[in-house]
Amino acid sequence: MDSLTPREITVMFTALGTLLFSARLLGEIARRCNLPSVLGEIMAGILLGPTVLGTLAPALSQNLFPSRGGGALVLDGLTTLAIVLFLLVAGIEIDLRTVWRQGRAAICVALVGMFLPFSLGFAAAWYAPGLMGYEAGTDHLIFSLFMATALSISALPIIAKILMDLNLYRSDLGVTVVAAAVFNDLIGWLVFAMILGLAGAEHGHSMAIGHTVWLTITFTVAMLTIVPWVIHRILLWIQAYASWPGGVLGFALSMALFAAAFTEWLGIHAIFGSFLAGVALGQSSQLRERTRTTIDQFVSFFFAPLFFASIGLRVNFAANFDLSLTLTVLGLALFGKVTGSALGGRLGGLPWREAWGAGFGMGAQGTMGIILGVLALQFGFIGQEVFVSLVVMALVTSLISGPMLQKILRLKKPRKFTDYLQPQGFIRRLDGADSREVIRELSQVIAPLAGLDAGEVCNAVLAREKIMATGIGHGVAVPHARFRDLAEPLVGIGFSDTGVDFDAPDETAARIICLILTPPHDNGAQLEILADIAATFKNEGLREKAFHLTSYTELLALVKSGKDA
Amino acid sequence: MDSLTPREITVMFTALGTLLFSARLLGEIARRCNLPSVLGEIMAGILLGPTVLGTLAPALSQNLFPSRGGGALVLDGLTTLAIVLFLLVAGIEIDLRTVWRQGRAAICVALVGMFLPFSLGFAAAWYAPGLMGYEAGTDHLIFSLFMATALSISALPIIAKILMDLNLYRSDLGVTVVAAAVFNDLIGWLVFAMILGLAGAEHGHSMAIGHTVWLTITFTVAMLTIVPWVIHRILLWIQAYASWPGGVLGFALSMALFAAAFTEWLGIHAIFGSFLAGVALGQSSQLRERTRTTIDQFVSFFFAPLFFASIGLRVNFAANFDLSLTLTVLGLALFGKVTGSALGGRLGGLPWREAWGAGFGMGAQGTMGIILGVLALQFGFIGQEVFVSLVVMALVTSLISGPMLQKILRLKKPRKFTDYLQPQGFIRRLDGADSREVIRELSQVIAPLAGLDAGEVCNAVLAREKIMATGIGHGVAVPHARFRDLAEPLVGIGFSDTGVDFDAPDETAARIICLILTPPHDNGAQLEILADIAATFKNEGLREKAFHLTSYTELLALVKSGKDA
Repeated sequence: MDSLTPREITVMFTALGTLLFSARLLGEIARRCNLPSVLGEIMAGILLGPTVLGTLAPALSQNLFPSRGGGALVLDGLTTLAIVLFLLVAGIEIDLRTVWRQGRAAICVALVGMFLPFSLGFAAAWYAPGLMGYEAGTDHLIFSLFMATALSISALPIIAKILMDLNLYRSDLGVTVVAAAVFNDLIGWLVFAMILGLAGAEHGHSMAIGHTVWLTITFTVAMLTIVPWVIHRILLWIQAYASWPGGVLGFALSMALFAAAFTEWLGIHAIFGSFLAGVALGQSSQLRERTRTTIDQFVSFFFAPLFFASIGLRVNFAANFDLSLTLTVLGLALFGKVTGSALGGRLGGLPWREAWGAGFGMGAQGTMGIILGVLALQFGFIGQEVFVSLVVMALVTSLISGPMLQKILRLKKPRKFTDYLQPQGFIRRLDGADSREVIRELSQVIAPLAGLDAGEVCNAVLAREKIMATGIGHGVAVPHARFRDLAEPLVGIGFSDTGVDFDAPDETAARIICLILTPPHDNGAQLEILADIAATFKNEGLREKAFHLTSYTELLALVKSGKDA
Repeated sequence: MDSLTPREITVMFTALGTLLFSARLLGEIARRCNLPSVLGEIMAGILLGPTVLGTLAPALSQNLFPSRGGGALVLDGLTTLAIVLFLLVAGIEIDLRTVWRQGRAAICVALVGMFLPFSLGFAAAWYAPGLMGYEAGTDHLIFSLFMATALSISALPIIAKILMDLNLYRSDLGVTVVAAAVFNDLIGWLVFAMILGLAGAEHGHSMAIGHTVWLTITFTVAMLTIVPWVIHRILLWIQAYASWPGGVLGFALSMALFAAAFTEWLGIHAIFGSFLAGVALGQSSQLRERTRTTIDQFVSFFFAPLFFASIGLRVNFAANFDLSLTLTVLGLALFGKVTGSALGGRLGGLPWREAWGAGFGMGAQGTMGIILGVLALQFGFIGQEVFVSLVVMALVTSLISGPMLQKILRLKKPRKFTDYLQPQGFIRRLDGADSREVIRELSQVIAPLAGLDAGEVCNAVLAREKIMATGIGHGVAVPHARFRDLAEPLVGIGFSDTGVDFDAPDETAARIICLILTPPHDNGAQLEILADIAATFKNEGLREKAFHLTSYTELLALVKSGKDA
């Protein structure tokens, strides 16, 4: 059996480590900037690929991410596996009952959202081929059909990631968008399969188009109706008689792999199979929450970053960049897709705001376009410039989609008390023996952080305390006040070894004291912060550990891992 | 960038699905037969590889698991990644403090356990080359050194798996064996690196031997001393400021990949790096239990089966089988390794029983031998027959190791009440209104299962019930009796919608009633079964779900997934 040489193995692990580390790092930075982390992950690939590293240090880049030979194939195989597993997770998260409920809206979004960009793309490529990067010598009809498809196909993986990042994936709108993207991409792949049929070439799959179409439809219908029922029974049996959770995990993952192989063989991409397998598996209550989380976390933080980073390795974005082509493709895609999907959503009965939400949700295009593009490039339907314009279009639409969704839907992140903590506001050991003294201690450390007078802060909090004591039980107290000169909330936290009486309902002395100052006009802030503190310290194990903290960082780390601490 | 064709992708997913599914299936069957599941996983590979499938259906086998070209390389890359991640998990599980405590014994086991088989192997290959499969034309000294190394190197991955399967991995003996295996294999790889140096060939790594040795030692010492300290601080910071658990997961996995690349570059295998990275990561309390479990489960039930199954794909075991060679290799390996390690353990201060336990624990040889063998085969040090004899030796020693360990250490699996349940002993709805009536109902269904008289059973249980009522609270009752004519315990379970008074300390009526019959001479059985029932139904969520069961299989599935149900 052919094996990798030690040198190739060294390179493979260095490459994977570099990809994963940079993707996670830039992903975290993107998240800090309120962007979907997938954008950071794709950027990591562009930095490491031919565009930046390949230009600055071509030898290093070529050694680390070889574009030819065994190393390149292994990386390609691994990232294909990665995207297949990511779609499995996306599938598992889908609740079919919600999809049926949102079905009408989803179908309208998908159909209109597909029709408009497809017509625009085809018209542009057919009547203005030069503008769309058509190269003489290739088949004009096939080129036009391909561009139309590339502009109208959605990006299920990116859409899923953006919706997950925004915590919208299981909302009604999220489900509508995902269901629409599924319809959309199924149709898109069927059209692409037809293009391949038209091209008549031996493009790796030799099945007659009619066959592909009806097998795909049969497979999809089966996976959404009878297969979940069968799987539920199989999982029940496995859960009862095989080792746990190994039996269920092994079955779920091998099923996804087989389904991926099947759809790839059909001529539509492998990710469809694993997505539908995920949907079928996700309906069974025998796939326990814990098992879902295990698959989800490993895939989201190992495989997904690898895939998204690998996109940037495929091509030099600077050298093959054609501004007018890219702007044309981007304009057509954005206008066609967003407007089309929004109109479809309106037709399907969504209110305007949600319809535009669906429009921008569907607006994240390109992963599928990129995958199509890779194939189209191999088969000579398009040139490098068109490929780059498709990838840039994917990036820009993905970049716009998340923030626009946030804006249109007026999404706010729930506020956490740690967002308003600062290292100076943490007191490891409070000296005070009563509530008045500990409030003074905490006031003295947090007042300067907002340029306030410590005495005034202390008095305001004590005045509030007099109206009603703020011990909330479990040894936690939350003295607080609204304070006029404050731009945003401010929290201080201190620990008392002996405990201080805050007149709690359960009569325990408070050992964790959080002082909360909020601006007067912001009604939600105080309540959200109080609720977050109460929820955090409700966990007994976490409270116990909190008493043994030695630094502010440890406090943050403890609160972050929450009940799993 | 080179990509896989659709056909290659189809084959890749089919192959991975088949490997995973068969490995998990045979692994479960092995577990049912009280064998380590790793044996089933290796067998799956032999069935799917050239030995069986390749002989029965050569075309199918060659299509599914191509031995040349891109598909073979991708599979090789993936299984290498798999074994690297498996060793990461094995490393994370290690508690360094225990290793230091067991250090003396471990070093003795490792040194003597290495010295004896090395000397025997070298002597045999040097003085009786024909017997050991020496082929004229190759370098005799190198061949002898290689055989000596192959017979004295341990199989860390298999040893870890067997110990995990037997629940011994974190026991003192388990730690001694693993620590010894680590020493052993480190020395083994250093010796192998020296052989490569002797051979003077450009075998993919061109580092001077002296360099390899001191870099390996420095790296190992650093990973066991200062690196865990640094990692703990980094993880704390990540936990505090990055997303959770994505930050920690991404860091841990990329660190393992970099460490793997580093040791592969050193000329010792990649798995050393990830193992040591795992050890360093595992010492930090910031790697939460939940994160450990996520990595552990995904790796153990996805990556590990893929790797172990892939071993069997590499060679035809039947065609290259040479009985006398295999018996010689096996005899030398078993005798040398087991006796040597046991003597070492005795020298290191272990009692004889544990010393033999360590001997048979270390006796599982070969994964490393196989990896060495693959390289040796590529470089022409050995022939196919020797390679097969090494793999068969690995299989047989692994097959012997688990059961011998169980026998020598007199391990017993803790008994679970579900081991003694049968479908007929499950009553969905008990009709009885008092304890006497439900005991009679349950007696009537379980007595026939052991050929007993229902009336007698009922009377014995009622007599016991009179001495002290068996309601244990939380709505659970455990009426029981010892019964002379019984060969092994017998349990019946019934659910009562109304509840039946069993005089429980918390005064709740019993809605879950388990009738337990045990043989008179087996003192432990009754206690263990009672404790298991109490522990199982202590969980409120599980009790709630238990009332809505409709079948015996659902009961087993529910109990199996325990508190995660």
